[in-house]
Amino acid sequence: MSTVTTPTVKPSSVLRAFAEESLRRCEVSAGDAAIAADSLIEASLRGVDTHGVTSLLGIYVRRLRVGAVNPVPEVRVVSESAAAVVLDGDNGLGAVVGHKAVHDCITRAAATGAAWVGVRHSNHFGATGYYSMMAAAAGHVGIALTNGPPSMAPWGGVTKYMSTNPLSIALPADGDPVVLDMATSVVARFQVIQAATRGDQQIPEGWALDSRGRPTTDPQEALEGLIMPLGGHKGYGLSMMIDVLCGVLTGAAFGPYIGSLRRELDRSQNVGHLFGAIDITRLLPLDAFKSGLAQMCREIHASELAEGSDRVYVPGEIEAERRRQRLKEGIPVPEEALEDFRQIARELRISSELID
Amino acid sequence: MSTVTTPTVKPSSVLRAFAEESLRRCEVSAGDAAIAADSLIEASLRGVDTHGVTSLLGIYVRRLRVGAVNPVPEVRVVSESAAAVVLDGDNGLGAVVGHKAVHDCITRAAATGAAWVGVRHSNHFGATGYYSMMAAAAGHVGIALTNGPPSMAPWGGVTKYMSTNPLSIALPADGDPVVLDMATSVVARFQVIQAATRGDQQIPEGWALDSRGRPTTDPQEALEGLIMPLGGHKGYGLSMMIDVLCGVLTGAAFGPYIGSLRRELDRSQNVGHLFGAIDITRLLPLDAFKSGLAQMCREIHASELAEGSDRVYVPGEIEAERRRQRLKEGIPVPEEALEDFRQIARELRISSELID
Repeated sequence: MSTVTTPTVKPSSVLRAFAEESLRRCEVSAGDAAIAADSLIEASLRGVDTHGVTSLLGIYVRRLRVGAVNPVPEVRVVSESAAAVVLDGDNGLGAVVGHKAVHDCITRAAATGAAWVGVRHSNHFGATGYYSMMAAAAGHVGIALTNGPPSMAPWGGVTKYMSTNPLSIALPADGDPVVLDMATSVVARFQVIQAATRGDQQIPEGWALDSRGRPTTDPQEALEGLIMPLGGHKGYGLSMMIDVLCGVLTGAAFGPYIGSLRRELDRSQNVGHLFGAIDITRLLPLDAFKSGLAQMCREIHASELAEGSDRVYVPGEIEAERRRQRLKEGIPVPEEALEDFRQIARELRISSELID
Repeated sequence: MSTVTTPTVKPSSVLRAFAEESLRRCEVSAGDAAIAADSLIEASLRGVDTHGVTSLLGIYVRRLRVGAVNPVPEVRVVSESAAAVVLDGDNGLGAVVGHKAVHDCITRAAATGAAWVGVRHSNHFGATGYYSMMAAAAGHVGIALTNGPPSMAPWGGVTKYMSTNPLSIALPADGDPVVLDMATSVVARFQVIQAATRGDQQIPEGWALDSRGRPTTDPQEALEGLIMPLGGHKGYGLSMMIDVLCGVLTGAAFGPYIGSLRRELDRSQNVGHLFGAIDITRLLPLDAFKSGLAQMCREIHASELAEGSDRVYVPGEIEAERRRQRLKEGIPVPEEALEDFRQIARELRISSELID
């Protein structure tokens, strides 16, 4: 058994300022640094720590410093029609490129009723829900998809080919948006990385296979092996479709040709994303949509409870509650992350007061 | 153990002619009968028997005959913009309404790059993949979603609320299209209905819960109980999102307010669908898309095999092979379905030679 230590807790404003400053010191513009920091802080606030500032700032900084990521990308249009566009992300930070792409998508959807914006030559963009929620905040149905480096095999095979390619759909509501944000695997690969980093002896059954395709509960074997697709062949199929939409359709890399985030620091990832927005007001009045959605949420909340369950949630609700809590109480920073932040501060000559 | 009887096999042309004639005798126009019959025959050819002519023709005919479905719908535009439309299906057969909606969606996507067409006041439309494949046949990425009568509970609850709302994505390829067509449940509810109809003693663990939310392998308990969402909370979340997109966003019914297909013959279902198309040529040349997709399929096929697996498939491949086989060898018709067809022939005064 490992000793449980209480992690340090930092106000989100402190972590945000540190993330922005770190990115700016890597030659990222102030505006772009604010965007990328926001994507990390929002994930942390929502409790999605695998995609938050404590997990990702360090690797983003390192990739920028070795030149694997372009700090000053010029995002350009590759092909364009009223409702379907491909952008080239010029190897910028995924959050910077993704933010521009979603902004473009929202503008186009407002003009035509709906739009898709695909992106090539991008990088890891953090939590997928960040981008769908941008569109929902503008009153649209928001859709966000991304591919990534391989961690799953096609169903029936053991050759690592596709990522746990996530999808997110976000809906505007009177209160918190309703947000689905899910990997097409049983769990996100980063949960296995975290278990291995923590030195956990075991991960739950059903999460992963070893490199021969046999079920394993050993985090190290799982890391070298395969992540299990959600529901077997269905998760595999959905993941492949997302890879086609984000990779093939945009001209980005796909499958095993996407560069690793944490290894291969010398090359760009060429990740592809696809963002969609549907302007609800072109279909029905926004109030009617919100009132129907509110009715559905109310009725779902009123469901009779299953044995052992104390509450029924709608998608995104747990994260919205966590966000309110962490805005008030701060974001937990594990000791390794704090060490990493101190190291970043030294490397980038940032005053350690900013983080300690 | 039950005795296995070899089912009768009929050429698809015979079943198609019988389905068309049956629907025409219910006052459906020749053109609409051909469309609805095609959706049923295509599902049967692809081996999706739960959504094929042997499973659905009888109930479609019965609903038409009692006036629960309108044989001569006037599909009209409710709201319209270049890339987002809502149609009212006027309580027509789902396949007839769906076919018109996808046709409209393809036309709009060709003009603007992408489009969504939502539908309210529709009915059960058969296999979801039929509609995404229509768009793929036109060179588009095809997306099809539908809601349906409730069979699943929200995760953590036991109140039946949402359907196993399926989603399909189809991609044009040089050979067979690549087609994902999946319910958001572990299995389609109809597989439980079929197991119960056959008098099976057991269904596999993990398919269903009884009405109190406890796991069950009894087909009757499962029918009165709940279908398990795919991967627990993820399948629930995806199903809810599809219900919002098909029901709330289009002004159709949603959740428990959708009429049952097989019971409640006296009322319309008010099913909602949402169809999407992306014109690939607006993003990259169709050849480049097909060549990237072909590379991905080749590489997936070449995957090293898992223990116990003899082949790796891409989505839709098993169904395409089954289609070639059944086009040649015919479609199996279980004895109950043949009895049902004979009954339909008597009721509608169709010459029994057409089916016997």
